[in-house]
Amino acid sequence: MKMICDRKELVEAVLNIQRAVSSKSSIPALEGILIQTKGSDLFLCGYDLELGMTTVIPAQIEEPGSIVLSARLFGDIVRRLPGDEVALSVDEKNLATIVSGASEFSIAGIPAEEYPELPSVSDETSIAVPHGILKSMIRQTIFAVSESDMKPVHTGTLFELSENKIRLVSVDGYRLAVREEPIACNQDTSFVVPGKTLSEVLKLLPENEETLTLHVGRRHILFQIGSYTLISRLLEGEFLDYNAAIPASHTVEILVKTRTFIDSVERVSLLITDRLKSPLRCVFEENEIKLSCSTAIGRANDQFEAKSTGGNLEMGFNNRYLLDALRNTECDEVKIQLSGALSPMKVVPKDGSSFLFLVLPVRLKSGV
Amino acid sequence: MKMICDRKELVEAVLNIQRAVSSKSSIPALEGILIQTKGSDLFLCGYDLELGMTTVIPAQIEEPGSIVLSARLFGDIVRRLPGDEVALSVDEKNLATIVSGASEFSIAGIPAEEYPELPSVSDETSIAVPHGILKSMIRQTIFAVSESDMKPVHTGTLFELSENKIRLVSVDGYRLAVREEPIACNQDTSFVVPGKTLSEVLKLLPENEETLTLHVGRRHILFQIGSYTLISRLLEGEFLDYNAAIPASHTVEILVKTRTFIDSVERVSLLITDRLKSPLRCVFEENEIKLSCSTAIGRANDQFEAKSTGGNLEMGFNNRYLLDALRNTECDEVKIQLSGALSPMKVVPKDGSSFLFLVLPVRLKSGV
Repeated sequence: MKMICDRKELVEAVLNIQRAVSSKSSIPALEGILIQTKGSDLFLCGYDLELGMTTVIPAQIEEPGSIVLSARLFGDIVRRLPGDEVALSVDEKNLATIVSGASEFSIAGIPAEEYPELPSVSDETSIAVPHGILKSMIRQTIFAVSESDMKPVHTGTLFELSENKIRLVSVDGYRLAVREEPIACNQDTSFVVPGKTLSEVLKLLPENEETLTLHVGRRHILFQIGSYTLISRLLEGEFLDYNAAIPASHTVEILVKTRTFIDSVERVSLLITDRLKSPLRCVFEENEIKLSCSTAIGRANDQFEAKSTGGNLEMGFNNRYLLDALRNTECDEVKIQLSGALSPMKVVPKDGSSFLFLVLPVRLKSGV
Repeated sequence: MKMICDRKELVEAVLNIQRAVSSKSSIPALEGILIQTKGSDLFLCGYDLELGMTTVIPAQIEEPGSIVLSARLFGDIVRRLPGDEVALSVDEKNLATIVSGASEFSIAGIPAEEYPELPSVSDETSIAVPHGILKSMIRQTIFAVSESDMKPVHTGTLFELSENKIRLVSVDGYRLAVREEPIACNQDTSFVVPGKTLSEVLKLLPENEETLTLHVGRRHILFQIGSYTLISRLLEGEFLDYNAAIPASHTVEILVKTRTFIDSVERVSLLITDRLKSPLRCVFEENEIKLSCSTAIGRANDQFEAKSTGGNLEMGFNNRYLLDALRNTECDEVKIQLSGALSPMKVVPKDGSSFLFLVLPVRLKSGV
């Protein structure tokens, strides 16, 4: 193999592909990047058996071939090379020589034959979504993906397509995030994409109006984002019947300034540590919300103005979950809807219904 | 105790004082900040038995008193308080109440009586140095302070005053840094200041032409920087006779672009890891410097132009030490002076003699 390519293009491609590479694997080749000539392009691939990422960059191919090079080392080298171009050649002993300007590196590679094949995606469903919209949808639901393996299907986000609508749902047993958008689509289907895949999709997605296509097969999904292709397995299992978990009505409704609420929760949370956990006590009154917290460290009280209708209510919350929900509203003002001290808090936009977050309350010891 | 002060002034003071507070101490009070009313000021103090830092901020004192509060917690709280002012009151049970805007925190304090007293400094020598000059002198020598306790006096920097000159010297057995400046001074003295103290001095020193005064006693030194006072013990022991370590002459002299040399060393160093150490091979030739390195990972070669006089030379170096010296020259161009493959490399400014760095070479296995 022998080729020359632009250094900046190679650096960008390698930095992205690196993220899909296994940091530790029983298959040594998976700790590397597969580099392959493909016509007049250079093909790069990272894969950890769950998520694969590939891209191509233009190159001047002098001799076709392939090699697997340590992702970390190859990335470090190309980032620091002095020239505008990079020449890569590989001999029959899999020794790769990288030359740029007056610098030359020789490092041992692994034959491409030892690199596992990426799954192919049977193209059963195709969905076209604008980059910016998918980005916002993932961002506003990924925080509620479960980090525990107790129910593996909940470590992913449910994609639900129906009646010209796309809906993303994440849930971890303590909170729930639903985000929906209208979309041109006549399919009725659903599948669950792993959270790790979505966080990579998030990093690759540009903030623009161009459209990407999702190809969904029976067991895999493929995201085509610009020159990058992501292939991920889908999660199997029965996802929570989330509609049943959302309270149908509410008795108390409060319009709050999101930033004010967040600042107040953050302050009162200063007394909570990993070792000293205590629920946040929230008292919702007609014109204000009072927060307090008490741990072995001390006691904190805070309050701020907020217009409420429907009566007073006292509830306890886990401070982290409350913060996550508020921070991910991405709105200056939101509506808080409550239906009882032990029913979940609903957080919805001031106008419209693009998102709905639920935060489960914590039972308070009385009189603390 | 009862007082009110400006929140921003308190935050700035606490963030600085925090750095002098012990993170773990057998004396619990030392993990806190001593807060004391002093006339119409609030006095704050952090101390770890080696270095003490104090400052005062203006305050409205309603009732004099004192308390010790957890440095981390008090810092976190004042940073997040919502008001422009902070009111602090302490009751007879050492319970501190902090109020600002609609926020109120109650936390337990430690009586000030349990806080150890700071040493007093017998003012035997006073030295006046402009802020900016002391800052640059510390910065250019602190990197060579020893991190090993093998010879405790070398964990500090030697301050040497003589003939209207101040000279700072650090050494760790592998490299040496000397930095000097003319100064109005008729004293002939020397003392060793701990590196940890100097790194705090560096953080507090503004980059201006105002003058600070160093008060040096027999066992302690006091730095007065604006409203901050730092008191540190001095290190005892016999400092290296550094003049004897500096080669008096050289045979080879090379003028190098510092950035080019650094980039080249950084590139070739990519093959060196904590587990795979190998010296950097430098070949100094008439018109260029060639660098190479070879480890189990692979082999790297690099070279760049540099005008040399006095012949060719091949030497080995520890890449870290070479980088530290080059990075701390703070010059676009420097002179490298050599006198043999096993003699230290001298790094000096292109013009003048404000600094002199020595880097000890490493013996190379021949023919590698």
